[in-house]
Amino acid sequence: MPDTVTIAVDFVGGDEGAAVMQRGVNQALSADPYLHVIAVGRAEDGVEAMASTHERVRAQVVTEAIAMDEHPASAVRAKKDSSIVVGCRLVKEGSAQGFFSAGSTGACLAAATMVMGRVKGVKRPALAQMLPGYPSPTLLLDVGANADCKPEYLAQFGIMGAAYMERLMGVERPRVGLLNIGEEETKGSAAALVAYSLMEQQVAGFVGNCEGNDLLKGSFDVVVTDGFTGNVCLKAIEGTASTVMGYLKRGFLSSTKAKLGALLAKGALGSLKQTLSPSTYGGAPLLGVKGACIVGHGSSDAEAVKNGVLVAARTARQGVAGLIAEEIAAAAGASAEGEEA
Amino acid sequence: MPDTVTIAVDFVGGDEGAAVMQRGVNQALSADPYLHVIAVGRAEDGVEAMASTHERVRAQVVTEAIAMDEHPASAVRAKKDSSIVVGCRLVKEGSAQGFFSAGSTGACLAAATMVMGRVKGVKRPALAQMLPGYPSPTLLLDVGANADCKPEYLAQFGIMGAAYMERLMGVERPRVGLLNIGEEETKGSAAALVAYSLMEQQVAGFVGNCEGNDLLKGSFDVVVTDGFTGNVCLKAIEGTASTVMGYLKRGFLSSTKAKLGALLAKGALGSLKQTLSPSTYGGAPLLGVKGACIVGHGSSDAEAVKNGVLVAARTARQGVAGLIAEEIAAAAGASAEGEEA
Repeated sequence: MPDTVTIAVDFVGGDEGAAVMQRGVNQALSADPYLHVIAVGRAEDGVEAMASTHERVRAQVVTEAIAMDEHPASAVRAKKDSSIVVGCRLVKEGSAQGFFSAGSTGACLAAATMVMGRVKGVKRPALAQMLPGYPSPTLLLDVGANADCKPEYLAQFGIMGAAYMERLMGVERPRVGLLNIGEEETKGSAAALVAYSLMEQQVAGFVGNCEGNDLLKGSFDVVVTDGFTGNVCLKAIEGTASTVMGYLKRGFLSSTKAKLGALLAKGALGSLKQTLSPSTYGGAPLLGVKGACIVGHGSSDAEAVKNGVLVAARTARQGVAGLIAEEIAAAAGASAEGEEA
Repeated sequence: MPDTVTIAVDFVGGDEGAAVMQRGVNQALSADPYLHVIAVGRAEDGVEAMASTHERVRAQVVTEAIAMDEHPASAVRAKKDSSIVVGCRLVKEGSAQGFFSAGSTGACLAAATMVMGRVKGVKRPALAQMLPGYPSPTLLLDVGANADCKPEYLAQFGIMGAAYMERLMGVERPRVGLLNIGEEETKGSAAALVAYSLMEQQVAGFVGNCEGNDLLKGSFDVVVTDGFTGNVCLKAIEGTASTVMGYLKRGFLSSTKAKLGALLAKGALGSLKQTLSPSTYGGAPLLGVKGACIVGHGSSDAEAVKNGVLVAARTARQGVAGLIAEEIAAAAGASAEGEEA
């Protein structure tokens, strides 16, 4: 029997409005009978109505909201009674074990880091995204929390990503790669060369460099890079998938024969679309903070909200933050011993 | 009537062997009646046989070859009589106006830079790749010549890429973007912020930041980034296209109905495959050297060789290197005036 777990859910965030949050949360509650939810939002976000319809939901009414285009750190400092700040505070105080939001990614990162706090020893929390590789998915991090990264952050990202894949996806001894421009260890930017040697020393599952075309091949469970390269790369992957689907659609509409073909192959095309959809994985975990924090796409639909809330629940139950704390401490210990020796 | 132009072609390079080079060169010669070719290779690469079959081909026999896995700069220094070094020397001496190779990219970059030499004022030559965007293609550079880049290199890449798109693709006033992690000019890594402000001052067609998912949307004619991010991103795009096609293929084979559908839609799928194929654009131009230098994929087929040789001929005829020299000098002049004012 899984443990009871409480997830604070931001009812303000998301481009699709509170109705989508309600539907997604209801689906998550149906899927997981030991899940409790604190619906965090303003009166107009319908959090009290939501709580009145479900016994495992309670409302936390707030008075402020952080918009998508506000400066993240300033907004978090100024709006203490916003849904994002209050959601993170509920985790900090122990009322909830995790937080899900489809609001401003930057504000979630800032609030989680400032309010929940970093795991001891973690230099920079990182945002991770599961990529739909074949035959297996790959966790890419950082995808945008830290535009400028020192090589030592990357080694920590490897440790944190491996902990997540082990606990969430049940991968034994995850294979960790460094995103780079060649397979050989002599390849890369100055920063990548330093990161390679640090990762060899500190990351148990490190297996070497990963090139851009390896990201979707399932040859790595975790791939680390700085938040600039990771963000550009993630969006390039999403953009390419969408462009290829667009070319395909135009091709299928180009003749009656092709239209008929597309109709017959509808099942295959639908399953491809689902495989590539960001809704499938529900959101991006922020790793390295004290608590489970999952950030959804701004355009999250009910399916994505459901999956995001369920992933937050699993991340909390599986004690990912605790494992990260242990592994980071162990790596620091090993590295200190290495220096003494 | 187009001018007569001579392209030196490396008959050693390429995983597919000399037969593919021969077929590709023959196709290029048929497509362009004013094209002459110098076939550069060892006796065993059949360059003399090639010359004897076509009056617009002459052979340049060399004794050495640079392998794909040799250290580029060392190999170029050590092997003065290799096809890559000799091909670049033919351009330097004026016997040819351009060079095409499907051999080691690193060795081509090193040889072109050392032997042909840089255009005056160009700090770093850059490797550019045309991306198959819709509705129009986008030139991405640098895709791997310089793993570490200063912001001022990126501004020059913008000038060089715009010159190429103007002369080669007939784009009037190309729209130049900076690859970055957000649209706003306040977004990005420390290096991207500096590059943004330099590009505003120095690049006439600069229109702002380009995110990863904009690369295939045709909203920019040229997008610049450092060679690390560009290489990872280009390979991620190629890998995603190939993964999506793989998912599609498996989907089409999953049922009789889907198989029949795929058969009917064969034309549409074939044209998609061609759109995404690296053969379509034939190779990557190295911009900023004194002469036309096009580097093909190691796996170039005859179609890619043909297109690569034709692109080299067009790059030479259109005087891309000359335009780059003018524009770089003008930017340096404007920037010096700005400093004096």
